[in-house]
Amino acid sequence: MSVDSGDAPVIESARRKRTRDRLIDAAYEVFAEYGIATATVEQIAERAGFTRGAFYSNFESKEELFFALADRENQVRFDRLEAGLTEYLPENGRISTDQISSIVRDFLGLQPDNRSWCLMQSEFQMLALRDPEVGKTYIAGEERAMTMLGDRLDELVAMVGLRFTMNSRELSTVLGAIYSDGIARVMLAGSTNPGPDTVDAVSDTIARIVQAFTEPV
Amino acid sequence: MSVDSGDAPVIESARRKRTRDRLIDAAYEVFAEYGIATATVEQIAERAGFTRGAFYSNFESKEELFFALADRENQVRFDRLEAGLTEYLPENGRISTDQISSIVRDFLGLQPDNRSWCLMQSEFQMLALRDPEVGKTYIAGEERAMTMLGDRLDELVAMVGLRFTMNSRELSTVLGAIYSDGIARVMLAGSTNPGPDTVDAVSDTIARIVQAFTEPV
Repeated sequence: MSVDSGDAPVIESARRKRTRDRLIDAAYEVFAEYGIATATVEQIAERAGFTRGAFYSNFESKEELFFALADRENQVRFDRLEAGLTEYLPENGRISTDQISSIVRDFLGLQPDNRSWCLMQSEFQMLALRDPEVGKTYIAGEERAMTMLGDRLDELVAMVGLRFTMNSRELSTVLGAIYSDGIARVMLAGSTNPGPDTVDAVSDTIARIVQAFTEPV
Repeated sequence: MSVDSGDAPVIESARRKRTRDRLIDAAYEVFAEYGIATATVEQIAERAGFTRGAFYSNFESKEELFFALADRENQVRFDRLEAGLTEYLPENGRISTDQISSIVRDFLGLQPDNRSWCLMQSEFQMLALRDPEVGKTYIAGEERAMTMLGDRLDELVAMVGLRFTMNSRELSTVLGAIYSDGIARVMLAGSTNPGPDTVDAVSDTIARIVQAFTEPV
């Protein structure tokens, strides 16, 4: 192994990132097929085309890999939110609280199909409930995501001359609970048109809650 | 078997109810210990002191037994709500929306420890998501419970001179989602004081939502 070149750490780190990404991709597939509880490290490594050893030089456990997957999935949803910002918000303009309803609908429509991710999260949450250490890491990650979302929503409404009358992290948690519950109901009802059906099922309720806790600055 | 007596059907039906109740009690214990997915009909029958045959002459399947358990658990929570009605609402009086916060807290404090029931419901929901027939029965039961709760909440606020500005079934679904999410968070955080901790975690949020969608008649 050569360590003379100044580029080596960069190359090493890029390669490491690619390996981790492939393992995360593989885990998503394997978790969806077999369930997180029954999926094994061997199955994930094999699906990614690596050895068990390569898995363990990147992740300590299946749980740690799940947390990396969760970070990535949260980022995807965050990026879609940012996309909505340039696409649907008037630049340097103001909106009235009456316009919240259609904007919420537009923003939710930009989100990816969240069904399999929500199912995976529910399953992981059940596992986390049985293991206090995993539970604490899980809840800390959730709280971090809700704080990030809340901060961003604060900035977002400020851009259009509004502010929340409920703490934005609390509001994010409420909206997250309503959204997950809505997805579960759409799936349980056997919907075959999940994207639009989810938006239909939750967007009015979410819009009404946002509206109730938003006022002009 | 004697069928001459006019009391026979009554006795038969009382005995049948006792058998069903014992099977439901046993199922709650076995589900909590082993998880619904792995619990077997044999385990449940044995715990109740019956044969497998006795199980099947009362319930078609583990799923049907779960639905009977859900009906009973929902009824317990409903009865506690009714108890709050006589205990915490002023008779023939009116309350202001400002008083909603402390009344919500009082009502939530009357609810039983919902942790193991919430966990069981989440697990069953995951099973229901994998079986469309079970899923449809599950969601129909949920919708029925939310409609019942909504109707009762409508009557309850009318008694004190208030009304909701959101459809009461939609409001019930929102509150249910926030409540379940709050219980999961309290459990994940490793709370050892679940009853009061759950009330602390959710009652402010629930009160604010109720307040936002309630107005004087």
